[in-house]
Amino acid sequence: MPRGIFFLVVGASGVGKDTLIARALGELAPTGRYVPVRRVITREAGPGEDHEPVSIAEYERRLATNAFIHAWDAHGLRYGLPRAIENDLAAGRNVVANGSRASVAALADRVHPLVVIEITAPKEVLRARILERGRETVAEVEARLAREVAPLPARVDLIRVANDSTVEEGTERLIAALEAASARMALRRLPIRAGRDNIAYLPANSTAVASSSYLDAGRMDLVGSGRSIRANVNLAEPDWQLAPGEIGLSLEAFDRLGLPEGTPVNIRRTPSPDSRDLLRRKIAGQRLSTEAYETIFRDIVEDRYPESEVAAFLLKAIQELDDEEVVAVARARCRFMPRIDWSAPIVVDKHSLGGIPGSRITLIVVPIVAAHGLLIPKTSSRAITSASGTADVMEACARVDLTPDDVRRVVLETGGCIAWNGRLNHSPLDDIVNAITRPLGLDSNRWSVASILSKKWTAGSTHVVVDMPYGPRAKLKSLAEALELGRLFELVGQGLGLTVRAIPTDGSAAVGRGLGVALELRDVGLVLRNDPAAPQDLREKALRFVGEILSFAPDVGNRITGRRRAEEILSSGAAAAKFEEIRAAQGLIEPIRPGRLSHVVRATTPGVVLDIDSWHVTGIARRAGAPADKTAGVDLAASKGDLVDIGAPLYTIHAAAVAELEAAAALATRNTGFTVGDARASA
Amino acid sequence: MPRGIFFLVVGASGVGKDTLIARALGELAPTGRYVPVRRVITREAGPGEDHEPVSIAEYERRLATNAFIHAWDAHGLRYGLPRAIENDLAAGRNVVANGSRASVAALADRVHPLVVIEITAPKEVLRARILERGRETVAEVEARLAREVAPLPARVDLIRVANDSTVEEGTERLIAALEAASARMALRRLPIRAGRDNIAYLPANSTAVASSSYLDAGRMDLVGSGRSIRANVNLAEPDWQLAPGEIGLSLEAFDRLGLPEGTPVNIRRTPSPDSRDLLRRKIAGQRLSTEAYETIFRDIVEDRYPESEVAAFLLKAIQELDDEEVVAVARARCRFMPRIDWSAPIVVDKHSLGGIPGSRITLIVVPIVAAHGLLIPKTSSRAITSASGTADVMEACARVDLTPDDVRRVVLETGGCIAWNGRLNHSPLDDIVNAITRPLGLDSNRWSVASILSKKWTAGSTHVVVDMPYGPRAKLKSLAEALELGRLFELVGQGLGLTVRAIPTDGSAAVGRGLGVALELRDVGLVLRNDPAAPQDLREKALRFVGEILSFAPDVGNRITGRRRAEEILSSGAAAAKFEEIRAAQGLIEPIRPGRLSHVVRATTPGVVLDIDSWHVTGIARRAGAPADKTAGVDLAASKGDLVDIGAPLYTIHAAAVAELEAAAALATRNTGFTVGDARASA
Repeated sequence: MPRGIFFLVVGASGVGKDTLIARALGELAPTGRYVPVRRVITREAGPGEDHEPVSIAEYERRLATNAFIHAWDAHGLRYGLPRAIENDLAAGRNVVANGSRASVAALADRVHPLVVIEITAPKEVLRARILERGRETVAEVEARLAREVAPLPARVDLIRVANDSTVEEGTERLIAALEAASARMALRRLPIRAGRDNIAYLPANSTAVASSSYLDAGRMDLVGSGRSIRANVNLAEPDWQLAPGEIGLSLEAFDRLGLPEGTPVNIRRTPSPDSRDLLRRKIAGQRLSTEAYETIFRDIVEDRYPESEVAAFLLKAIQELDDEEVVAVARARCRFMPRIDWSAPIVVDKHSLGGIPGSRITLIVVPIVAAHGLLIPKTSSRAITSASGTADVMEACARVDLTPDDVRRVVLETGGCIAWNGRLNHSPLDDIVNAITRPLGLDSNRWSVASILSKKWTAGSTHVVVDMPYGPRAKLKSLAEALELGRLFELVGQGLGLTVRAIPTDGSAAVGRGLGVALELRDVGLVLRNDPAAPQDLREKALRFVGEILSFAPDVGNRITGRRRAEEILSSGAAAAKFEEIRAAQGLIEPIRPGRLSHVVRATTPGVVLDIDSWHVTGIARRAGAPADKTAGVDLAASKGDLVDIGAPLYTIHAAAVAELEAAAALATRNTGFTVGDARASA
Repeated sequence: MPRGIFFLVVGASGVGKDTLIARALGELAPTGRYVPVRRVITREAGPGEDHEPVSIAEYERRLATNAFIHAWDAHGLRYGLPRAIENDLAAGRNVVANGSRASVAALADRVHPLVVIEITAPKEVLRARILERGRETVAEVEARLAREVAPLPARVDLIRVANDSTVEEGTERLIAALEAASARMALRRLPIRAGRDNIAYLPANSTAVASSSYLDAGRMDLVGSGRSIRANVNLAEPDWQLAPGEIGLSLEAFDRLGLPEGTPVNIRRTPSPDSRDLLRRKIAGQRLSTEAYETIFRDIVEDRYPESEVAAFLLKAIQELDDEEVVAVARARCRFMPRIDWSAPIVVDKHSLGGIPGSRITLIVVPIVAAHGLLIPKTSSRAITSASGTADVMEACARVDLTPDDVRRVVLETGGCIAWNGRLNHSPLDDIVNAITRPLGLDSNRWSVASILSKKWTAGSTHVVVDMPYGPRAKLKSLAEALELGRLFELVGQGLGLTVRAIPTDGSAAVGRGLGVALELRDVGLVLRNDPAAPQDLREKALRFVGEILSFAPDVGNRITGRRRAEEILSSGAAAAKFEEIRAAQGLIEPIRPGRLSHVVRATTPGVVLDIDSWHVTGIARRAGAPADKTAGVDLAASKGDLVDIGAPLYTIHAAAVAELEAAAALATRNTGFTVGDARASA
C-alpha cells in the first residue's frame, strides 16, 4: 500500500480556497481516499474554514506535548496541524490541508509525499472578496494584496488551480487536480525493449494525462512501494493494450523498477534541476565551487538534465578547469561515496597513467610493500587497446573479480591485493561522463586527476605514488607535460588530504620482455624469484617505485633507505612468498603458460637495434590473440642498442591456434617493428 | 514497388566469392527476387565466375554504344556491367554482382540503392586457395596479398561475411546477409504517441534483427516508395502486436513518413556522420572552413548526430568563433537555401538587433524607400518578451502571414512589403540550434551575425542597414560593444558579397510614445501623415535610417542627400500613399484602435523626469494584455527632461477588460517606472 499524499492547499486571502476545499472534500471524502485536516487555530469558530478553535493556553499545551506535526504563527494567530495525520498517510489516505506558502518549506521536511496546490484568482476578484468578508480595513486589504509572495522551494510538486470562474467550476478543477496527482496506476510490463531508455506508456485518456501534458515535457517519476524510476512518457491510444488505470513500462524499465505487475504507483513530473543556474554559470565561463560541482553532479547522476546540457557542461568542465577547480571537482566527487576506513595510519596506493606496453610492475610492487608491512589495497584495470592489463596478468594466476568484502579480507590478511577494478569503486558519474565525452574525443587529463584521486580517497588510501610515463606514443608527450600534470596531481592530493608523489618515467618503449598476459606473468615470476634471466628494466622500475612508497613509512623515511629495503625484501624471497600468500587469499588459479605454437621473427639486415616500435609489436601480439587469449603474445629477444646479425632472433610470437600465429607472423613479415642499421649513420 | 538492391560482392582473390555467389544464387534465384549479373570480361571462359567472355574489339564496341552501366580495367583485363541491370532494379529485383572494392565509389554514383558485401578470410587461407588455382606465380601471389586495399567511401552500406569455415557455412552466411539487407518489412501504424522522437518497433525475431543488433546502436533509416524517415529502434517481443515481417512506427513517425499501412519498406542502419572528425576538431579548439561547417551543418540537420555531440559542437561554435570563422559559418549557411533573385541591381533591407520598446521605424522606412524606387522586401518578427513586434503592428492594419509567392507579388507590385518572418526564411538548422542552446543561456551575438546575414543573403538582399541599439538594458551594453559587433556585421557582409552598414543607436529608452500594438500603429500613422503631434524621436530615427538606405541608390549617393530625399517623400505624402498601397497589396485589415478602457497614471511628486524605465513600463503594458491583446498598451504623456507637477499625467494605460486594466494599474501604483525629482540634486 503506497502512502497517501499530503495536499497542502495554498492561496492568497480571498482566493476562495476554504470554499473550494470544503466543496471538493464534500465530494471526495465519501470515497474514503481523502481526509480533511481540521487545523487547530487560536481563533473563535466563524465563517470560512472549519477549524478547531482553541485558547492560547490549550494551544501551548499541545505544542509542548508534541501534538502537532507542524505549528506556525501568522496574522497574529497561532496554527497547528495535528499529528494524527501521520496515521492517515500511512494507511494510504490522502490528506487535504488548508495552509500558507510560508509553511511549505517546513512541511516539505516533515511530510512525504507533499503536493502543493495553489489556488489563484485575479487581484480585483481578491480585493472584492476580502472586503466583503469584512475582517480587515481597506488599507489592510491593500497592504495584503501588495505583499510579495514567498517563492516555493524549487523541488516541491506544485499544481495551480485558477478560481476565476464560478464556484462550481473552481471545485471541479480542484477535484481534477487532486485526482490527477493522487492517481495510483497499476503497473503493467509491456513487451517492448527500449534499451537504455526507460519508457512509460500512459493511456491517452487517463486522469493523469487529462490534467497535464507529459508528452515532450521531459521526464516523469514513477513511485511505488519505496522504489522509483525516471522515465520518458509515450502515450498509448485509448483502449489499446492499457486500461485507463494502468501504466505500462518497457521491459528493461520494468526490470529496473523491480516491482510486480499490478503494483499501484504514483506518477510525478520530474522536477527541474536546482543546479541549472550553476550549470549555466560554468557554461558562461565562470569558476565553480566544490558545493556547486556537488549539486550539479548530483542532478546529473539523478538524470535531471537532458543529454545536451550535460554535454555542454562537461565540455567546459573538462576543457576549462583551473587548478583550484580541479580540487573542487575532486572534493565534490568524494562526497558521493563513503570512504573505506582501514584503521591504519598509512594506506598506500600506486597508479599508472598507463599506455606503455609491458610495464607490469604492480605485481612486484604490491608484495614487496605488503611484506614490509604497509597496507596496499590495489585495484587495476583490464586491457582495452593493449596486449594485457594488470588485472589480466594477475588473473592468469589468481582470482581478481573480488567483492568489496573480499578485498577487505585479503588486505587485512596479507597486507595487499591486486583486484580487478571493474566492479569495485564504480562511479555512476563516470559512466555518464564517459558515454558523453568519449565520442567527442576530448583530452581530459586534468579532469582525470580529479577522477583518479577521488577514487583513491574513497578507497581509503593516504599516500599515492603516480607513474607518469612520457614519450612520443604515450599519453604525456614530454617531460614538461609530465611534470606539469604531476604538479597538479600533488596539488589536488593535498586538497583531499592525501600525500601524492608523481614520478615521470621513460615511456618511449616497452618495459620487460613479454607482451601478452602469460609472457608478462612469466617476467614477473622471474623478477620475484630473483632469476638471473629476469628483465632488469622491469626489476629496476619496480624497485624504484617501492623505494618511493616505503619512504612514506616512518621506519624508512626516505627513498634511499626505501630502495635498499625493497631490494632486501625482494632478494630474501619474502616478496615471492608474499605474492603466493596474496594469490592464495584471492583464490589460486593454475598459472597460464605462453602459447604452445610459436614463430621466431629474425633480423633481415645486420646492425644495431636503433629503435623498437613497441606499439607495432603490441599490434602483432594482439593479432596473435592477446589479450582475450591469455597464452598469446610476443617475447622480445633483442633490446634497443643490441648488435644483431642477419637471422638473429628479434622476438618470438606465441599463439594458441595456427590461424592467429600465421596472421601475426604475416604482420611481422611486413614490418617487424625493429629498426636495425648502422648506429653511426643514423646518429 | 520499391526498387531492388544492387549487391556488389567484393573480396580479395582466393576469398571464395565466386563459389559463394554461385551457391547462394542457386538457392535464391528461383524465388525471383534475386538476379545474378553476368559480367562482360575480356577473358576466355574458364573455372570460377560465370562471365560473358568477349574480345577486346567487341568490348570496345559495347563501351562505345553505352551498353555498360559501369566499365573498368583490372589485372590487365577489361570488365563491364551490362546496362540491362537497370530494368531488374526498377522491377524490384535484387541484383547480385561480383565486383572489386576499387569500383565501389564509381558504382555508388551510378546505381541506387547499393549494398556492398565483403567476403573475408584469413590470409593463409587466401594464399593456399590462390596458389591452388594456379593462375599466378608465388611472387605474384605474395604481391597480391601484401597489396593494401582501397578504403570504401564512408557512406556505402557495407556488410562483412567471413568465409573462414566450410563452403556450406559461408554460403549460408551470404544468404543471411542478402536476405537481411533486402528484407522488405510491411509498415504498421502503432497507436503509441512518442512526441518528437520517431520510434520504429521491430519484432525481436525478425530477419533484420537476427542479423544485427539495432538496439542501443543509434538510429536506423526506413526507406520506401521514395520516402524515408530516421527512427530510434525499440524491439517488440515475438508474437506481440507485430508479425515477423512487419515493422511498427509510433503515430507521429507514421504520419511524418506519410506512407499507407502495409507499404513495403527497407531498413538501413543510419550511417555515422562523415563530418565527425571535423566536429571533433572544432571541439578540440581548431578553426574550421566554410566547407567543414557546411558538412557538419548538413549532418546535424539530417539528424545524424546524438544531441550531446551537437550541443558540445554548438557550444564551441558559438563561444569560440573568430572573425574569419563567422564568415565561414555565414557562407556555409548560405549553401542550404537557394537565393531569391529579384532581378534588380539593388535590393535593400533593414535589420534591428531589437530589444528597445517602441522603435517601430520599419513601417515608416519601408514605404519611403519603396516610394523612392528601391526594392525592400522586409520580413519582421512578432513580440516575444516585448509589448509588440513589427509584424504585430503591421498586422493591426494588414495581413502579414504571407507566402513566398505573396511576398514576391507584393514587392514587385509596390516595391516593398512588411511580412511576418515566421513561415518565410525558415531554417531547420536554427530550430535545432535554438532548441539546444536556449536552455544553456548562451550569449550568441557573434553567431547571430552569421545567422542574420545569411538570411538576408538568401532573401536576395544586396544592401543591408543594421540598427544596433546599445544601452544598459539593451542586448549591447555600450557603444564600444555596438561598434565591435557592427565591424563584424560589415566584415561578414563583405564575405557574402553584401554591402552592410551597422549603425549604433541610443537604446537607453523607448522610441515613440506608444508601447503596445495599436498605440504604436497610431504613432506610425501620425508620422506618415506629417501630423504635428507625431513623436519626433520616431520620425527622426526613421529619416536617419532612410537616409542611410537611400545613399545606396546611385541617384542619391550619400546620406545627406538621402536624408533630404527621405524628408521630401515623407512631407509630400508619397510615403503615406505607398504605405496604403503596400497594405492593400498584402491584404487590408481595419486598423485596430487602442483599448476603450483607460487609466491615467499621474506624478505623485513634482520635478523633472530624470529617467523612464521603459522596460518596467513595457511590463505594465504586458500586464494590460499586450501583445496578445492588440488594443492594450501604455501611451507615454511625459518624456525625459519634462517638468511635471503633482497630478500631471505620466502615461495612460489602455486595456480591453477591467481585470487587465486594474492589474496593470496596480503594478503602476507600486512603481510608475518614472524617476521624478530635482535635476540639480541628482546631477
